[in-house]
Order: sequence, then structure tokens, then C-alpha cells
Amino acid sequence: MPRTTRPNRLSRPDAARGSVACVSVPRTVAPQVPIGRIPVQDVRPSVDGGARPAKAVVGEHFNVTATVFREGHDAVNATLVLTDPDGHEHHTLMTCLNPGLNYWLAPVVADRTGWWSYRVEGWSDPYGTWAHDATIKVHADVDTELMLEEGARVLLRAREEVKRPKAGRALLSKAAATLRDHGLPPFMRLEAGTEQAVVDELHARPLRDMVSPSAEHALLVERERALAGAWYEIFPRSEGAVYDPVNHRWKSGTFRTAAQRLPAIAAMGFDVVYLTPIHPIGQAAKKGPNNTLGATPEDPGSPYAIGSPDGGHDALHPDLGSWEDFDYFVAEAARHGLEVAMDLALQASPDHPWVTTHPEFFTTRADGTIAYAENPPKKYQDIYPLNFDNAPKKAYAEVRRVMQVWIDRGIKIFRVDNPHTKPVEFWQWLIADVARDHPEVIWLSEAFTKPAMMHTLGKVGFQQSYTYYAWRNSAWELREYVSELAGESAAYMRPSFWPTTHDILTPYMQFGGPAAWKVRAVLAATLVPTYGIYAGYELMEHVARPGAEEQIDNEKYEYKDRRWADYEPGGPKQGQSLAPFLTKLNAIRRAHPSLLWLRNITFHHVDDEQLLAFSKRRPLPGGGDDVIIVVANTDPHGTRTSTVRLNMHALGFGEHDRFEAHDLITDQYWDWGRDNTVVLGPAGEPAHVIHVRRY
Amino acid sequence: MPRTTRPNRLSRPDAARGSVACVSVPRTVAPQVPIGRIPVQDVRPSVDGGARPAKAVVGEHFNVTATVFREGHDAVNATLVLTDPDGHEHHTLMTCLNPGLNYWLAPVVADRTGWWSYRVEGWSDPYGTWAHDATIKVHADVDTELMLEEGARVLLRAREEVKRPKAGRALLSKAAATLRDHGLPPFMRLEAGTEQAVVDELHARPLRDMVSPSAEHALLVERERALAGAWYEIFPRSEGAVYDPVNHRWKSGTFRTAAQRLPAIAAMGFDVVYLTPIHPIGQAAKKGPNNTLGATPEDPGSPYAIGSPDGGHDALHPDLGSWEDFDYFVAEAARHGLEVAMDLALQASPDHPWVTTHPEFFTTRADGTIAYAENPPKKYQDIYPLNFDNAPKKAYAEVRRVMQVWIDRGIKIFRVDNPHTKPVEFWQWLIADVARDHPEVIWLSEAFTKPAMMHTLGKVGFQQSYTYYAWRNSAWELREYVSELAGESAAYMRPSFWPTTHDILTPYMQFGGPAAWKVRAVLAATLVPTYGIYAGYELMEHVARPGAEEQIDNEKYEYKDRRWADYEPGGPKQGQSLAPFLTKLNAIRRAHPSLLWLRNITFHHVDDEQLLAFSKRRPLPGGGDDVIIVVANTDPHGTRTSTVRLNMHALGFGEHDRFEAHDLITDQYWDWGRDNTVVLGPAGEPAHVIHVRRY
Repeated sequence: MPRTTRPNRLSRPDAARGSVACVSVPRTVAPQVPIGRIPVQDVRPSVDGGARPAKAVVGEHFNVTATVFREGHDAVNATLVLTDPDGHEHHTLMTCLNPGLNYWLAPVVADRTGWWSYRVEGWSDPYGTWAHDATIKVHADVDTELMLEEGARVLLRAREEVKRPKAGRALLSKAAATLRDHGLPPFMRLEAGTEQAVVDELHARPLRDMVSPSAEHALLVERERALAGAWYEIFPRSEGAVYDPVNHRWKSGTFRTAAQRLPAIAAMGFDVVYLTPIHPIGQAAKKGPNNTLGATPEDPGSPYAIGSPDGGHDALHPDLGSWEDFDYFVAEAARHGLEVAMDLALQASPDHPWVTTHPEFFTTRADGTIAYAENPPKKYQDIYPLNFDNAPKKAYAEVRRVMQVWIDRGIKIFRVDNPHTKPVEFWQWLIADVARDHPEVIWLSEAFTKPAMMHTLGKVGFQQSYTYYAWRNSAWELREYVSELAGESAAYMRPSFWPTTHDILTPYMQFGGPAAWKVRAVLAATLVPTYGIYAGYELMEHVARPGAEEQIDNEKYEYKDRRWADYEPGGPKQGQSLAPFLTKLNAIRRAHPSLLWLRNITFHHVDDEQLLAFSKRRPLPGGGDDVIIVVANTDPHGTRTSTVRLNMHALGFGEHDRFEAHDLITDQYWDWGRDNTVVLGPAGEPAHVIHVRRY
Repeated sequence: MPRTTRPNRLSRPDAARGSVACVSVPRTVAPQVPIGRIPVQDVRPSVDGGARPAKAVVGEHFNVTATVFREGHDAVNATLVLTDPDGHEHHTLMTCLNPGLNYWLAPVVADRTGWWSYRVEGWSDPYGTWAHDATIKVHADVDTELMLEEGARVLLRAREEVKRPKAGRALLSKAAATLRDHGLPPFMRLEAGTEQAVVDELHARPLRDMVSPSAEHALLVERERALAGAWYEIFPRSEGAVYDPVNHRWKSGTFRTAAQRLPAIAAMGFDVVYLTPIHPIGQAAKKGPNNTLGATPEDPGSPYAIGSPDGGHDALHPDLGSWEDFDYFVAEAARHGLEVAMDLALQASPDHPWVTTHPEFFTTRADGTIAYAENPPKKYQDIYPLNFDNAPKKAYAEVRRVMQVWIDRGIKIFRVDNPHTKPVEFWQWLIADVARDHPEVIWLSEAFTKPAMMHTLGKVGFQQSYTYYAWRNSAWELREYVSELAGESAAYMRPSFWPTTHDILTPYMQFGGPAAWKVRAVLAATLVPTYGIYAGYELMEHVARPGAEEQIDNEKYEYKDRRWADYEPGGPKQGQSLAPFLTKLNAIRRAHPSLLWLRNITFHHVDDEQLLAFSKRRPLPGGGDDVIIVVANTDPHGTRTSTVRLNMHALGFGEHDRFEAHDLITDQYWDWGRDNTVVLGPAGEPAHVIHVRRY
């Protein structure tokens, strides 16, 4: 048949540096991509119009949607074709959710990691057309014989043209014969062609005419930790650091002493232990306590000022121990079921070996000096930013070499410090290059910056991203923000929620008291599948350095001995730690897989605007589902009574159903229905985490 | 530098009929399109992700927007590159409208028809970076000498690396020299590098590093009539039809008698005269008056039942005259400044020559008969729908041949009847094939159907589309609907507003009285650039066939002599026609080019929810602008007094400015400002059409 020419999408000019050459080619031909016999439009997820992959983790359910329609009145149908990493296709019949908008949907779940892809095929449905028309016409006795004969022909086509089991062939043969059996009343003959068994057979193995595929969309399926995990951040030098009050000197913690903390972290139920940088620290312009200048040799300096004569990003800080000690730490973590995440802070102290071996990795100014970090007119003379544009080949290769050092020692998670200060295309290259040999490696972006950068870092490969969570404290803010995160962007950007970090201590946490520390942990652990806390969260370390929104006596610049033993049973501070509360939260997460997905959230109405209510629901492999409802009071100072009105449909209930609500925080049981009263706040617990038990 | 592999977007399976073959190719490589050194995301307009062209008409202004950002703190900038049909590039510096969202914009206007294209180039701006940092640092006396030297180097680079006129080179040389002049105070040296002349020179011819182009987007620029025009629909056989009361017989109007109506249509200010089908009409199952069966030989039949022994779509109805008469009509129209639009109704009466010469153009049923149109259980036995799938090559070629018959006789506008009952890919092919030789041809889609089909017909080539206008009668409906039409979809679907057609007579028009007929004409003629009326609108023919929302004694099935002369001065019905009102409306449209654009609309607040207020603004070639404000009462039964609060900024005013409001309907003048009282309704005129005259 006549066709427009094949896709001749205008070519993309080379993304070269410098001006693009002027192309003088008169254009007269339409750059129209053929629409297809059955138009398939707006396939989603679609990341950058299909230029980048959508992402999911193994076993995660999500929906592919499309607009599929056709001319005239004949039946149209749609198939989702999922192609696995081995190139095998899996067909799923789609459902038309909104006929007026021609909106079709099919759920997708990929059962292993790798590069999958999906497309939507629109097609003409001769059986559907016949069944619709025949049902109306035979009942009205219009063209009865003709309709029945045409039904027989469609079924015989379906039998011949589509591979199907013997039983299916026999079923269609018999139905066709009955349709042609003039000895039977017309209604019985029609029934033979439209009975459920025939419908089911054609549902499973449809006769498809005019099959029109959409473009193929890439789907990257990653391991579950890319979506879900509970993180615990430590400065390893603090774990086991000892102060000698006689000599007023600190003895650094080591990998060996830090490893002694691992059982406690594991016992709280965390999945990942994240280490701030463990490399040699520069002496030049070293920062002292509370970010002051004039540090003494005794001050340990910021671990983010990386590099000294002892080495750079591929080296260990000598105080922390040897490579053997490092390997021991990683092995101990593994033994306790913990993965180790390392910090990748691509910047250098003036003492970094690169400064002499690779000055081309830095910016040299007009006076021949190397540029340090600035935010004019402020200067950060302890940090040299890397410049990836002077000698990109060399710089990219050197970073790639450094990454391999750590990957070879068993590190598979990297928390990337300030990725938004390095070229996006560098990350795209680095993550893809590492993934070629190590697809299990996970990268967390610490880009607290504008949305476009954060989203694009996710699109080019980062598995996870820090978020604005620390600054979204009211119920409506959280509802809006999480709705956004769980929406279209969930296909490429997975959020990680941190109520505090070593850099962030918001006024809400400084002044909210224990209720704030509890509710922010609950919300982080339940709103999204990945959350993290910074060591000391258990102790509600809420005192900020005056004028700053970060901890006083920040661990970035000094050692911190938290005397964990004091909080143990029998210790002087027994009962003053949130560790049992966090342990409970992580146990709830592990017992309730609904909390380990992102796109399965529904918000519910609460009368009190300070309260937030949401639920998560996930089908279980053995049938049934896991449903958790969270109701939280975001006001840390007031205990509030209010009514929660549940969206019963979203929970899998009818409007007037009842269920047993098991509060996993207090272990109480209630009889709940659509409308329920809650009392939450500092007088009791600030949140319910309710497991829905069907009667 | 290391790069991800070039775009290896997964290939699109062939859009072949039947199942798609299973491809067994294990995939391990990321199908990542390189992000570019400076990411450019979300370029708009983007029709189907760039797979289809955006559209505009000659001289029409629209905006291209994009998200452009970079890592770190250095200055980023963006250029819109518009490539004309000869391949010459035109650069426009974009404006960052929203730094937080990295949202950039540039206006576009194309000065001639053809295939243009656009892309957005993100780039690093070394001058912008320097000017920002230097201004801060020199004032703080930080690195003063260094900053001034670096400024000199940037300007000398700009002088050497970018082609610029001699004066520009001299300007930059002098500025660089002053920056290096140690004899001057630092502030003066800085000023030399940041003065307006230098900024302007670098604005006009910027020094661009790391230029990163987006994909190229196609832009189809068409003639103005594709966007704007006033249409008048006639049944040519009615114009000059005469009833003989003695013999009770009608004598058909002809092209010659219909041509006598052209001066009046032109005098009312219409641009296009649209003829319902003019082909031979089938006798088989012919419909009589009011869509009844059992027509007599005297009944003319529906012109949509095309084809008889006299010929098909390439023939003229013998009653209308000869080819010479047709040519005379077209020439007369042209002489009066009118284009002729023809109806393309691709369906056949059972008498159509194709039924015997090309039975493969139709659907043959199991009993060997040709399928007529049905909406089960209803049958339309006077119509055979075409089937484009049996012999698509032949069918496509035959329609193409028919089109050429009319194009060769000077027809350049086709109103397509029910395009949504034919394959979308057929239209894509047909319109593109015609456009190859006749890019001036305009196609209007009469697809009163679901949004997806209507939008897609626009995307694949239709220049214009009928709309839901007839059923959008309240102020909020119109505000929402026109906001949608003037938004993103305006890049590919141009609306045509018809208050009635020969098929549509809504209850609003049946029962609204003269105020309804006036206000619907005003709104159609001013909300969007293309509108049309069906002959008899002047006479407010508001009586419907009982049980139907269309005219009683519908002209589709019989002749109609409207006795136009009766409404002329001195005639018995003088003063009873809306012709003078329509004449005024069309005169306003011609005098005010702002009404001939779609994307330039702004809605304003009116206290009364039944009132609608909007404005259109367009810059004039000679400077200044044309601004029209329309305030209309959508309640045809009540005269309402209310306050209009104008968005003064959108009109080009300050909040407290005043202007002279000239009501072009009543020729009254008022002093208006932000808040104004209006009185509109059947007691006077239902709408103001105000020309804004700046004091």
C-alpha cells in the first residue's frame, strides 16, 4: 500500500563543542513518521520521549498506558509487548480504562534485572467486531444467517492463523460448526460463538488484524535495593574514637572499631551502612571544629577535603587502618546483612596527588594558580574543584579507575556528593561504563538543587536521589511532594528520604522535640521505599551551630564519641534512645512489602489539616495483598483528634466494609471502616502505622 | 572525550499487518541518547515527541521553550536556531523566564511557507560567568587584578573566535586594553568590560562554549488561510432553485444561479464559500424530505449519497451544470475575493461507478453482497462505506486521482466529511502526497468525535478541524475549551468554530432568540481565527425537526429557496436579517489582525459567571499593536450588568492606566481602566467588541 516515506526525522546535529555548521539543504519533504494503521499515541512511561529508559526493580508492578484508537466503529484492541533481556516477547492484553479518551492500560512486572523493552501494539479485532454486532443484530433478527456465517468464518480464521493448543482448536471448530448448524435456533448458535470459553480462548490467543506497533521503549530493570532500603550513615572515625582527657587528645576510630558498631546497626534493621569519605585528608587550609579556620594538627579535618601525601580517592586514611582492615569491615557488614555504601566526593584538597600528577584535572587561572572553590566573594581554599573539560578523556578514565578499586573490594553502592557540580554527561558516561560490567552498582545522587538537574541525573543513570524531604514538613506539602515523586517521575527518579544528614538540621528538628524525631522517621520510612538516618538520630541530637541549620560540633570537623553503651539496658541513659522505635519501624518495613514500593501510594482525607493519611497496597505472591495505612500528626507540639475518611476502593474494600486495624506502633487492634477517629501527638504516639486485616 | 555510544534507540518493528516476529537478541547495552554537555530538555512545541511537525502560518508569532541548565555555578545560556526552507540558520538568544525551573523562551516567526525546523542550543557563557563573578569580586576587592586580566582574555577570545563587524572587534579590543590598564582605578577598568555596548555586542554575537544542540524539530509553515478565514456554507442547488406552485415541481439551482449569490457573500466579508457535494446523487434507497424513506423521483436526494450512472466523485451533478459552468462559478468567486472549498465525502451510493468498476473498494460480505453503512441494528442502505484495506494501493491512487481533478480546476480547500471513519494513515498519505506538488491545499477535518482522533488528524496533516464549539455555550465552558485549543495543541490542530451547520442546530440556537444568534456569531468570529456559518444563519432559521437537533425540512433532502431579495432594502422582510451584523463582524476581523491569531488570547475576570471576557493582542509591522477586548453575555434571555476586571499587563498597560475603549459593534467610545461596568443582553447588544485605543 502507499505509505509516507520511512521515518526521516531530521538529523540531530553533532553535539560538538563550538558553533554548529550551517547546513544548506532545501527541505521540501514532510518529516512525518508513519502513524500506523491503528494509531498508538502517548505510550507511558516515556522518559525524554523514549530517548532514555524507564526504570523498575525486579518484581515491581507498574502500569504502561497508551492512547489507542481507530477509524469507524469496528473493534480496536491493544497488546502490551514486553521483551525480556533475552529477546523473548511477553504479550499482555491491555484494558481500555476510558473509552472516551481511548486510554488503555496494562500492568507490567519484570522478573529479573537487565535491559527489557516494551511497546504497545494497536490492532483491529475482527472477533470483537463480530461479537458486538452479532449480539445486537441476531437479537433484533437483522441479517441473522449472514451474521452467524460470518461468525463461523472469523472463528475458523482464528483457529488457522494463530498458534493455539489442540483443545483451543477443537473449541473453535465446534463453535464454528454450531454457528452453521441450521437445525438449531439462532440464539443457541450465537451463544456457541460468544460463550465464555470462546471469549477466553480469543483473549488468550487473539486474532489480530492490522497490528500496529508503537516505538520500542527501553526498560532498565535493576535489583531491589535500587528502589528500597533503610540506610544508616556513619563517620567511621567516630565509631570507637576515644578521648584521652589527660592528654586532651583523640584517638581515631578505625575500620576495626567501627565494625563493632555493625551488629547494633544490623539489629536496628538497617540494610545499608553508608560511610562518609575514608580517604586521606588534606592538611592545607584544613578546617577546625565548627568549620573554623586555624585548625591544629590534632584536628582531624573534614573528610570531604580529600587527598594528602598519603593518597587520594583510591587510598585509605591511615588512621582508619589498612586495606585488610577495610576488607574486614566490608566482610563484617556482609556477615550482618548490611551493604556498605561509600561516599564519592569528586573534589580535591590542595594536597591531593592529582594536583601534581594531573594538574589538567583542575582549572588553572590567569596567574598560574589552581582555582579553589568559590561562591563569590566567598572562597573555600581547602577545596579544588575538578575540571572535566580540560582533558576529559584522562579525567573520565582516572575516575573510572578509582571506581574499580572500590568495586573490586566489594563496594556496590556509591553515595555521590554534589553530582550537580560535575557535568551531567560525565555521570551518564561513568554510570553506563560501570554498569556494562557491574550492573548491580547503585548510585545515590546528593543533588539538593533545582528540579531539572535532579530529574536529569535520574534520567541519565542515578538509581536514587536525595530529595527536598527535610524541608517538607506540613501535611499538604508532603501530600503534594510525594504525589509528584510517585507519579510520572517515578519511572526515572527514585527518592531517598532523610530527616537529617550531617549537613542538614532543620528548625523543625531543632525545636520539634521527640514527637518531631519520631514522626519524621515514620514518614521517611513509610512514604517512600528508601530512607536513611544519620548516626545520632536515635539520640535526637537537635542542637544546631548558631546561625546554621546543621549540628553544632559537627562530626565533619571533629571526632564524636556517642557512648552508645550508656543507652543500653542498665546504662545511665537507658530509655533515652529512639533505637527501639527505629528497630520497630524497620521491622515493619521488612514484614510489609507494600512499604518497599513507591508507585502504590494513595492519600486519604483527614479533617485536621495537620494530619496526613496515606496507604500502600501490594499484591502478595501467594495471593491476597499487603495493605498498610499510615496516619501521622505533623504538628509535633499538639495532640490532635480528628476523623480519617478512607478511600475504601483504594484499600480493596466496598464503601461500607469493616476491617481490623492493627496498629503496629502500639500493637493495638481496632474495628475500622470508612470513617475513623484518631488521636495523635506528643501525648501518645505521633503516628499510627496500621496493618489492614480483612475479616 | 569518552562518550556513550551514539543514539541507538531501539529499532521500531515494521508496522506490518499480522503478528510481529519474535526477535531474540539479548540486550546488554544502555539505549541512552547522549545528554549533551549542557543539557537541553523538554523543547516545545514538540508534537509526538518530535515525530511530527509543529505548524504555524506565515507571520504568526509563537514561542519555543526549553529547560536548559548546567552543573555548578558558571553562566549558562541558550540560543534558538531556526532553519529556513533553504537551510539558512537564524539565531535568537533565548530569555530565562524562570531560573528556578531553568525555563527558557524565544519568540519565533517564519516569513514564508515551507518546511522549517528549530532546535535549542544550550551553551556555556564565559563572558556571563566572568561579568557576574568580576562584578562581585572587584567590588569586594577579592582577586581584583586576576579578575580584570581574566576579563581581558575573555573579550579577546570573543573578538577572535566569533565573526563580528570591524566596530565590534574594535570595541572589544579597546575594552580588553582598558581592563589591563593598571593606570586606571579598578572600578573604571571593570566598567570597560561590563558597559552596555560590550554587553550588547556579546548579546548579538556571543562567545559560546560547549554548544549542545537539542534534537531538530520540524516546523511546517503554511499560508495564512490555514489559520484564519471566515467561511460561508451553501448548498449550490438551493441558490436559485425555483418552485413552480402550479406543477408542484422544483427547478434546481445551478452553478450559474449560485454564482449570483457570490456578490452578497463577498459583501458580507467572507473569505471562503464552501459547497456541499456537487456530484451525481444515487437513486438507490434515496432519502426524501426530513430523512424519510420512499423518496419520489422529484426529490433531489442527499448530496452525500454520491455516485450515479452520471458519475462519481470526479463528476458534476447534471442539474448543476457543465464543467464550464463550474469553472465560471470558481472564477466568479475568485473575482469577488472568495476561495471555493469543496466537500470531500468518501462514501458511495449503491449507484456509484466504483461499485462496478472497483468492487474491491468496498466490503463484500459472506453472502456476496456489498456492505452498506450500519450502526447495528440500524442500516443506512443508501450509503456504501469505502474499504481502504482490500486494495489500498488502488484505492489510495484513485482518491488521489480524484483530488487532482478538482485541484486542476482551481480548488485549494477541501472540507472532509467524516474523516474519522477512514484510516488515519490514509489521510497522512493523501495530504502529504498532495502537498508535495500543491502545498497550498488546505484540508478541514469534519471529525466530531473523541479528542484522540481529532488531535491525531491534525498531527498527520489536516490544517483545520471542526470543534465542540456548537456544544460549548456557557462562559466557563468556552474559557476552558478555548484555553485548551490555544495551548499546546495549537501547534498541530487549528480550530474552526461553527455555531450551526446543516447537521447541527442545538437547543441553545433553537430557543435562544436573536441574542443567541448574535452572540454565537460574535464568539465564533473572535475567539478563534477561523469560523464559519451555514447559509440561512442570517435568517435565524431556528426550527428543528422534532426529535432531532438539526433543521426541519433540512436542505440535505430538499431544495430551499430563501428569497434573499425579501430581506433587501425595500423588501417585505427588510431589517429581519443578521446580514448587516455579520458584515460588521467580518469587517472588524479584517481591520483587526489580532483576531486572526489563535495563540494570542487572554481571558479576563468578570464578576457575572454568565459573561465571558477575553482579549487578543498582536504586534503590528509598523510598530505598536492591535488589541481587541471582547465581553459577551452567554445568557441569551437576560440583560446583565457586571464588572470586568482587566488583566492590564496582558493588554500592555500598567495597573492604573486608562484607555479609550471603542466598541466596534455600537460605535460608542468610553474611558476604560482596570475595572469597568458593562451592560449586555437582549435589551441591547449581547457583546462588546472593543478596540483599545491608547491615549
